[in-house]
Amino acid sequence: MTEPRPVYVLGVDSGGSGLRVALAAPDGGAPRPVPAGEPVRSAEPVRTGPRGIDAAHLLGQLLPMARALLERAGGGRITAVAVGAAGLATLGDDLRAELPSALGEVLGVRRVALAADAVTAYAGALGESPGAVVAAGTGLIALGTDLTAWRRADGWGHLLGDCGGGAWIGRAGLEAAMRAHDGRRGGSPPLLVRAERLFGPVAGLPGRLYPRADRPAVLASFAPEVAGCAAEDAVAGAILRDAARHIAEAAAAACPQDAACEVALTGGLFKLGEPLLVPLREELAAQLPRARQVPAAGDPLDGALRVAADIALDRLRLPQDACLLSVHSPHPEGA
Amino acid sequence: MTEPRPVYVLGVDSGGSGLRVALAAPDGGAPRPVPAGEPVRSAEPVRTGPRGIDAAHLLGQLLPMARALLERAGGGRITAVAVGAAGLATLGDDLRAELPSALGEVLGVRRVALAADAVTAYAGALGESPGAVVAAGTGLIALGTDLTAWRRADGWGHLLGDCGGGAWIGRAGLEAAMRAHDGRRGGSPPLLVRAERLFGPVAGLPGRLYPRADRPAVLASFAPEVAGCAAEDAVAGAILRDAARHIAEAAAAACPQDAACEVALTGGLFKLGEPLLVPLREELAAQLPRARQVPAAGDPLDGALRVAADIALDRLRLPQDACLLSVHSPHPEGA
Repeated sequence: MTEPRPVYVLGVDSGGSGLRVALAAPDGGAPRPVPAGEPVRSAEPVRTGPRGIDAAHLLGQLLPMARALLERAGGGRITAVAVGAAGLATLGDDLRAELPSALGEVLGVRRVALAADAVTAYAGALGESPGAVVAAGTGLIALGTDLTAWRRADGWGHLLGDCGGGAWIGRAGLEAAMRAHDGRRGGSPPLLVRAERLFGPVAGLPGRLYPRADRPAVLASFAPEVAGCAAEDAVAGAILRDAARHIAEAAAAACPQDAACEVALTGGLFKLGEPLLVPLREELAAQLPRARQVPAAGDPLDGALRVAADIALDRLRLPQDACLLSVHSPHPEGA
Repeated sequence: MTEPRPVYVLGVDSGGSGLRVALAAPDGGAPRPVPAGEPVRSAEPVRTGPRGIDAAHLLGQLLPMARALLERAGGGRITAVAVGAAGLATLGDDLRAELPSALGEVLGVRRVALAADAVTAYAGALGESPGAVVAAGTGLIALGTDLTAWRRADGWGHLLGDCGGGAWIGRAGLEAAMRAHDGRRGGSPPLLVRAERLFGPVAGLPGRLYPRADRPAVLASFAPEVAGCAAEDAVAGAILRDAARHIAEAAAAACPQDAACEVALTGGLFKLGEPLLVPLREELAAQLPRARQVPAAGDPLDGALRVAADIALDRLRLPQDACLLSVHSPHPEGA
């Protein structure tokens, strides 16, 4: 007789800066990665093709990372995988069609969860409590649940929304710089100085910005400059107060109605610090008095591990949804 | 002895929808095209390459059009050409380097003016009076002069400005539609209905909008819907009032300071009609009490003909400027 091999679950966080992958034992609560330490990373963002997010490209990166993690853990098998992916709701067709059976065949995985990155952000931040999470970096989305259904607000990208996110704040700051350059009302001389320090003469900024594919990231790179002069510049201060109002509006729309619940903020945007957080606390208190602000317990990769453990142990409480969170069983139970 | 051949000037308007070209005798005031009627058009926008607007591509279209016009006029020669081109200020290096000498060599032209499209819009609308012109369609720019120097305001594109233009209004309307979809504050149910009628279910709009190269035009295509429900929808009405304020701010920054002057509005945006024009008249009266609103006398092609006649007769009063309006003499006088 052979010793039974240890059983693990795999969490995957796929976003604009690449893949992060971690392994954990499917214990109760928030599973802790094994081996402890930094997750395995790939710096290559998964490609998006005509069928959406490219399942083969994700799999090609994921499999060697999963095998390396198993090896570092001293061997074992993976029973469940949860993938949190940016863009899953609208670009997830190829992933949903290909990834579960491929993971079943190659790794012998029995359960696969495909989740929007906002869902893994939620699971990482609040676990399985009802509430709302605002996930914000370059973009911004709020996702809430009463554990029956999801409520989503914003996350529509830098032209249709993402109001209050990094690209939104940076864009508003650059508009204020251009206004100062023109002598138009609403201009901010300090933001003009900072824009020229970062990007060169602003008259040349359109020629440098518009041809780029990563326009939202370029806009968002100016957000720390807006935060940096919010204390002394009224225009910059007003941009951050407007951003705080928009963020609270998204949280209020996503939060379960008529019930006490928790609200958590997660993502790089909140590193802007007090210039954003002070007005945001005020707006949340005014717009969402029923909600308690709590720190995020973990990040989206922690959330992916939690969802993976939950599906492995058949105790997922977060609501399933065709676009936001689907659970697949590549090998039928008992087969 | 042969009969002296008639002498003409050529006006060219180069923009996003192609080339328009007209011929005129260099009479005083606003020259009238010969033969009368519609200008000659090419539906192919001039390409932009690594050196900016492609001079050879413009010339390849312009020369047969110029020859056809001369033939229709019964023959003659062209002494001066004025080209008004969108993007000239930032993308005009190849035009400035190549076009004057090529027109001199091939057509025997003695003077060539290269003008930003905002300058030909100005010359068409106000001739050589001091004042300001707001040229607005998908984008928006204000250009003013005291006949000593130009003052430009906005025209920075849909991410950095163009505040109050077609893409700006349409974008704000679509954001209000997404807010209604989410149940966020600031949403407009009538704009949501109109957005879904025009673009299909709005949850799919990001996937349809962001991959396109003509995003500003797509946004601008929604501006008439915002104007269409401004009377009965408070959110749409507020968007148009905000747009009016931004437009007046650009006009005020461009207008000569401390002097009576004229302001004209030109371009497709103003076809939105009273929902925009009523608040705009109020904003201009409040922000620019020293300026008299006048109808535009002509369009940018009329302006190009006027500049061409002025350089032919050595009486250009509009200020020359390296980026906005430069005059070139491919054949030195008397050579």
